[in-house]
Amino acid sequence: MSILVVGSVALDTVTTPFGEGREVLGGSATHFSVSASFWSPVRLVAVVGEDFTDAHRKPLRDHDVDLGGLTVAPGKTFRWVGKYGYDLNVAQTLDTQLGVFAAFKPAVPKAWRATPVVFLANIDPDLQAEVLDQIAGPKLVAADTMNYWISSKPEALKRLLARVDVVLMNDAEVRQLTGVPNLVRAAVAIRGWGASMVVVKRGEHGVLVFAEDGAFALPGFPLEDVLDPTGAGDAFAGGFLGYLAARGATRPLDARRAAVVGSVMASFQVEAFSLERLDRLTHPEIRERYDRFRALTEFEPLP
Amino acid sequence: MSILVVGSVALDTVTTPFGEGREVLGGSATHFSVSASFWSPVRLVAVVGEDFTDAHRKPLRDHDVDLGGLTVAPGKTFRWVGKYGYDLNVAQTLDTQLGVFAAFKPAVPKAWRATPVVFLANIDPDLQAEVLDQIAGPKLVAADTMNYWISSKPEALKRLLARVDVVLMNDAEVRQLTGVPNLVRAAVAIRGWGASMVVVKRGEHGVLVFAEDGAFALPGFPLEDVLDPTGAGDAFAGGFLGYLAARGATRPLDARRAAVVGSVMASFQVEAFSLERLDRLTHPEIRERYDRFRALTEFEPLP
Repeated sequence: MSILVVGSVALDTVTTPFGEGREVLGGSATHFSVSASFWSPVRLVAVVGEDFTDAHRKPLRDHDVDLGGLTVAPGKTFRWVGKYGYDLNVAQTLDTQLGVFAAFKPAVPKAWRATPVVFLANIDPDLQAEVLDQIAGPKLVAADTMNYWISSKPEALKRLLARVDVVLMNDAEVRQLTGVPNLVRAAVAIRGWGASMVVVKRGEHGVLVFAEDGAFALPGFPLEDVLDPTGAGDAFAGGFLGYLAARGATRPLDARRAAVVGSVMASFQVEAFSLERLDRLTHPEIRERYDRFRALTEFEPLP
Repeated sequence: MSILVVGSVALDTVTTPFGEGREVLGGSATHFSVSASFWSPVRLVAVVGEDFTDAHRKPLRDHDVDLGGLTVAPGKTFRWVGKYGYDLNVAQTLDTQLGVFAAFKPAVPKAWRATPVVFLANIDPDLQAEVLDQIAGPKLVAADTMNYWISSKPEALKRLLARVDVVLMNDAEVRQLTGVPNLVRAAVAIRGWGASMVVVKRGEHGVLVFAEDGAFALPGFPLEDVLDPTGAGDAFAGGFLGYLAARGATRPLDARRAAVVGSVMASFQVEAFSLERLDRLTHPEIRERYDRFRALTEFEPLP
């Protein structure tokens, strides 16, 4: 089952205590697409500038991401400059150059309007809604957001969340959006607005899923080498929705496996800069880490 | 199998966004003892002042904690005044009055010198070592510590850790003690000093256990009502060691179940101030929450 993603395609300059990536391919839609492509066909809607080269497109093409919705606009591609300290959970933004992204009006190609699964990556909630307006009867819609939109457009965001099935946010965002410090209560509030599932991303601490059939918690995978956390949340979303789309996006019980698959993809994403790790990732490696997640978390009933 | 615990018995004054406890019974040895008492007989070695009343002793006696090692010294009982904000993971200490605790020289009663399981709660590592000197051939020794001892007595602490089987610390302490930001590598370092098991307590994010047979990770239990996190780490340790002692303290494979039992006890501990919740806790409630931990964390293999 195909997935349509709308979001950013960017050139990132990232410094972590373990190295630097300069003008490397990044952006929420990029990381999502490559991760999801391991599971389902992906259609990308985004904008880049005239400085976006074939070399930049190559990793996306190598993963069979359909670039039929990637517009080239006059101007420069979105650039982000960021830095992480030893606490890799928190990114410090040093510079943002929106470039062509400032005037981005996402247009879904006609042939894609019946795409069954939609991921609205972190962009202006009004634009996320406009994309949704262009899709006919999707089976499953998921959305991400960030603190910037929660403070600047809370009402637009709440209107959007009433139209999606799955909300993905980090824990600080969930608390900020609801004004409720307790995550269990905050998730109840968000589900009350319409989304049937709330996925709380907690970085190295894993993920919490609140859905109709109760809560599911998965710890983060204890990695020895984390080089760059950029894109981890989007790689998670890519694995999560990619897996659900591959399973027909109809079985709510698949959500637990989907959350593990998402965590597996995110755990690989952070092991290198940009797309380096996912570029050379294989399905046997994915399966092996999925099994290691089971070995990491399983325990017996009390005697 | 009996457990001997040495640590603090205190009177705590705690403020959280959800209420206040004034001069309530607290201290690491207290919280450990009551929690462990649900699983195994507990022997308490600690000191209190002349202001420590029978009413203070009652909760310990109600849980059959053997107070044969509780010395009364001239002066006042240790007092701690602390505060938590909405981020309940971090306590702010407002005042500490050591009182009789300042001159504490733990003496293990002769009849207790063959106690098979020992918990050295968070006190001066030199005192922890002196207690250990008084025990003949223990089967299982566990120790906790805190940032204060890591900065002031790192060498004494490392000497102690070479003599224990299980180290319990929070993640910040593990990083501080080893100087290694990555938890997996930090745990390898600590295990290299002698302890066969490192238990990393992560508050609301759960627990990570590093042992010979690999890592075990358990997320925190998503609670709707957290009133006061004081004593959570000690209640965890009480459940963890209490369960291991009940099982004979010989099976390393029991460690996973022990970590879940510890997490169950900690999850109850934080639902009220002081010992209120554990005072009225029942075994069926413990079993039910253990089963809910399984429901929270289980997932199927990939198809």
